[in-house]
Amino acid sequence: MLLQPIVNLVAILSKKGLKRAIISPGSRNAPLTIALARHPDIQTFSISDERSAAFIAMGMAQSSKEAVAICCTSGSAAYNYAPAVAEAFFLEIPLIVLTADRPKEWIHQHDGQTIYQTDIFGKHVKKSFEIGADYSHPDAIWHIERTVNQAVNLANTFPKGPVHINIPLREPFYPLENEVVEFDRNVRIIERTKTEAILSTEVWAELLQKIEQYDNILIAGGQDDYQPELSEVLAKIQAEFQIPVLGDIISNLSFEAISKHDTFLPKADAELAPELLITFGKSFISKSFKTYLRKHKAIEHWHLSLNEHLIDTFQSLTQVLAVEPLYFFKKMLEELDFRQFKNGDEEERDGEYLNTWQKAETKANVYIENFFSESFHQVSLNEFYAIKQIMDALCPNSQLHLANSMSVRYANYLTVSANKKIEVFANRGTSGIDGCVSTALGAALTTDKLVYLLVGDLAFFYDRNALWNRYVPDNLRIILLNNHGGGIFRMIDGPSKQAELNDYFETVQSYKADTTAQEANLEYFFVDNIEKLSASIEAFCSKEGKAKLIEIETNAVNNTEVFKKFKEGFVY
Amino acid sequence: MLLQPIVNLVAILSKKGLKRAIISPGSRNAPLTIALARHPDIQTFSISDERSAAFIAMGMAQSSKEAVAICCTSGSAAYNYAPAVAEAFFLEIPLIVLTADRPKEWIHQHDGQTIYQTDIFGKHVKKSFEIGADYSHPDAIWHIERTVNQAVNLANTFPKGPVHINIPLREPFYPLENEVVEFDRNVRIIERTKTEAILSTEVWAELLQKIEQYDNILIAGGQDDYQPELSEVLAKIQAEFQIPVLGDIISNLSFEAISKHDTFLPKADAELAPELLITFGKSFISKSFKTYLRKHKAIEHWHLSLNEHLIDTFQSLTQVLAVEPLYFFKKMLEELDFRQFKNGDEEERDGEYLNTWQKAETKANVYIENFFSESFHQVSLNEFYAIKQIMDALCPNSQLHLANSMSVRYANYLTVSANKKIEVFANRGTSGIDGCVSTALGAALTTDKLVYLLVGDLAFFYDRNALWNRYVPDNLRIILLNNHGGGIFRMIDGPSKQAELNDYFETVQSYKADTTAQEANLEYFFVDNIEKLSASIEAFCSKEGKAKLIEIETNAVNNTEVFKKFKEGFVY
Repeated sequence: MLLQPIVNLVAILSKKGLKRAIISPGSRNAPLTIALARHPDIQTFSISDERSAAFIAMGMAQSSKEAVAICCTSGSAAYNYAPAVAEAFFLEIPLIVLTADRPKEWIHQHDGQTIYQTDIFGKHVKKSFEIGADYSHPDAIWHIERTVNQAVNLANTFPKGPVHINIPLREPFYPLENEVVEFDRNVRIIERTKTEAILSTEVWAELLQKIEQYDNILIAGGQDDYQPELSEVLAKIQAEFQIPVLGDIISNLSFEAISKHDTFLPKADAELAPELLITFGKSFISKSFKTYLRKHKAIEHWHLSLNEHLIDTFQSLTQVLAVEPLYFFKKMLEELDFRQFKNGDEEERDGEYLNTWQKAETKANVYIENFFSESFHQVSLNEFYAIKQIMDALCPNSQLHLANSMSVRYANYLTVSANKKIEVFANRGTSGIDGCVSTALGAALTTDKLVYLLVGDLAFFYDRNALWNRYVPDNLRIILLNNHGGGIFRMIDGPSKQAELNDYFETVQSYKADTTAQEANLEYFFVDNIEKLSASIEAFCSKEGKAKLIEIETNAVNNTEVFKKFKEGFVY
Repeated sequence: MLLQPIVNLVAILSKKGLKRAIISPGSRNAPLTIALARHPDIQTFSISDERSAAFIAMGMAQSSKEAVAICCTSGSAAYNYAPAVAEAFFLEIPLIVLTADRPKEWIHQHDGQTIYQTDIFGKHVKKSFEIGADYSHPDAIWHIERTVNQAVNLANTFPKGPVHINIPLREPFYPLENEVVEFDRNVRIIERTKTEAILSTEVWAELLQKIEQYDNILIAGGQDDYQPELSEVLAKIQAEFQIPVLGDIISNLSFEAISKHDTFLPKADAELAPELLITFGKSFISKSFKTYLRKHKAIEHWHLSLNEHLIDTFQSLTQVLAVEPLYFFKKMLEELDFRQFKNGDEEERDGEYLNTWQKAETKANVYIENFFSESFHQVSLNEFYAIKQIMDALCPNSQLHLANSMSVRYANYLTVSANKKIEVFANRGTSGIDGCVSTALGAALTTDKLVYLLVGDLAFFYDRNALWNRYVPDNLRIILLNNHGGGIFRMIDGPSKQAELNDYFETVQSYKADTTAQEANLEYFFVDNIEKLSASIEAFCSKEGKAKLIEIETNAVNNTEVFKKFKEGFVY
């Protein structure tokens, strides 16, 4: 093979654990394409639209917790990766971005697909590497091998994230007909041993002293992976030490944590304000939670994060603890248990603060159930009601993907029942609507679980190319809320009062998804009233059969009224 | 209005000539949206998919030769602009890219749609500007006004191109209900007077001496605007001074220049090699032309370009002349005329070199006509034949947009008749398939001419969102060559011999365009044999009625054989 170093690059990727690669068609990336496709241990997919390809890869990497490679030709192809690369960067998902390039000397020479690809993803990759186009000198080969090793190590080191390797390739780059591509078994591997960050006994002593000093302690989880062990530890901290634990739907806390804060917090006074706030995970969906904590600032705020950025979401941060949440809370539980054992009940927390939170939570739960049993929902179908019915009917042990804009917000009001063990995902790194369908499809390709996607019509049609490939898997279930526009703009105060609402904010659009479903060979359900909804839910949610799409058509004005009624009606 | 400086920014854009803006829905860009939409002299469009929006704007700016603004919300939205921004940069098309942003202090704080937007387009804008989020100090307002003036001046200075203004905005950013937005009539305008670069008498004397010294001079035009005056001058130079002028279909030379070089050059020997090569415009499609000139290098190669980059497409460049082609050739014609008048016929060029080119051209023309009259075309429809029939039937005074990959290559073999005055466009800046449909649609929105787009199925479905808006104009005519995959990979030697051809290069896809046409309310023609083609061409090509799409379904293997036969059959 003419370009053996490129074949070896792929051999190194595989030896370092790469199992999946998405290739977008092109000629310049042919050596990479051929090496990836022929490698016996790498599963490859061919996706034409690079924007969708990169989001599919991100969904795969997020769901499988393993790095995925994407590979494209030179030119603007790489730029179509950028939205997903930025999302992966903020969500800390490992992607190996392989962009073929022309040799440097061909840039800006009016010749073919050539742009400035060096550092093309700006600050949205952990690092951008570049190899040379010529491999005649042994040092050049040393550079390639070292670079690939470093790139993969970096992508998989916390905080994980995308890395970029720009790969200039010189013609000819096709092997001869029937030429055998041989993967060198002895390619050079340089591992980076995983380390664990821990806190010293002295630091723990200080921290525990503070924990005991404060009456009102709140633990709050931002977006995070589904981690049953972490949930178990947090559940014990809440139950045994009366410290409330709160999480958005995307924090994936699988126990009875506080989760209905979107309903009750806008009506709450200072009584829920923490003195010590301990947070982990990434972003919070709940604007009311952020607003509340920015107003009622904690005296101390510890944030657990391995990220070097100083992230001060609530404008109250006092201390960064660069350790894993599981390590921290496990040790905290142990230490609190030990102190309790040593000191008996004398220093026990009185539980009032937890009580206040739990009372509000219970009230919100009752309110929600009552709200959806009101008779007006039966008259004309609204999307909030439809989502409630469907979320209640989701199969256990499934994945739920929430598209941005209203989908993720509605879902955060309703949450999923902890005992269903549903993993929840959303592209909250950059919160764009641009790749929600592709992300869910990517996830579905890596799991046997059912993968539900809740998505509005703008996000769905924006990313319709997610379904333009040969891989749409049977376990995909798309819940499409079609109110024919960006309903969110009607919901928020500012734009709803502007003359430009219809045309420039809501962006009314007429498309329905029946044809898309047909083209992509999805089983299609159409629902525009409550009877059809009731009749379809079970069949749609079930594991049986092929991929399905349920289109729920509602009226934006009605949706807005219902949601407003819901938000205003709660009495704290 | 709370954000009067933003309103003034829009007032400045308008005073400096901005007539069109494309807005993608968002909340952060609301002040810009409202100011643009309410400005009486700016026509605004609302397009949800930012990737498509930017290509539509580029098509508008390219066709109208006037800068167009694009405006999006914060976050990954801006990255979706990047493919079109890169294309506009290399095609030197003026775009004013307005990206709303969160104030700097909110970057990487796990809060909403926030990425690193500063310099997000890398080297693919002429300049990236950024204004402050706070306007309380008068200097801040001075900065905004100055920045907008500089940005527009720069976008419109040769070489034209995209400029980026990143605009952080602080809440609240919606005007009150019924609040009147007032555009200040006295906003500050700073113009940049247009200059013209000329060459001194001494320089001309040197150049003319060289022109007279060489027997074999070739003038060749890369991609350029349709400029009848330039064509007229070049026609005279060819006719009066026996200097052959050659152009690809995208060079828009509207006279009988040499244009069939793709057919005859692969078979030619050194007899066509120029001693002096004079080029203008941007890229050449023709690989055989580039290969020929790189093999048979000119002794001197002058390239006319106002671009500061040293662009040496043929690896023979000796001199850059930073002047407008029209100035240069007009002056050259005058000077040659004057010298001929002064010296009489004694120094006249013998015409042998031009003759050699024209003989080859004539032979190619005859060959092409004979090839398409062969009977095997009648048996099963092939795309090359279909394109020939349609290109011959295009209405005069129309626009022809050529998508990348095979469409532009086929068309370059066939060319359009000079007397039809058809303007030809193609995204040959980065040569991506990513925005060809959007570009054509944008052009159609700025002209009364018919706008034909020749596009393959991969490029069409990739950019299907081009049609997902309320603006699809009646004058759009899409010729879709559906061979269910990237036919180009079957045509070129390397990939056609690989086991990965079907899956990873050609990327077989099953979609047909009937549903897309229906959704976008296009008149739809389906053609899969020669009778249907003959029966549809006239109705499809005509000016009557609404936007139309003709889907020409052919077999990739057959297409490949026909094209191979065509290329091999020519005898020089």
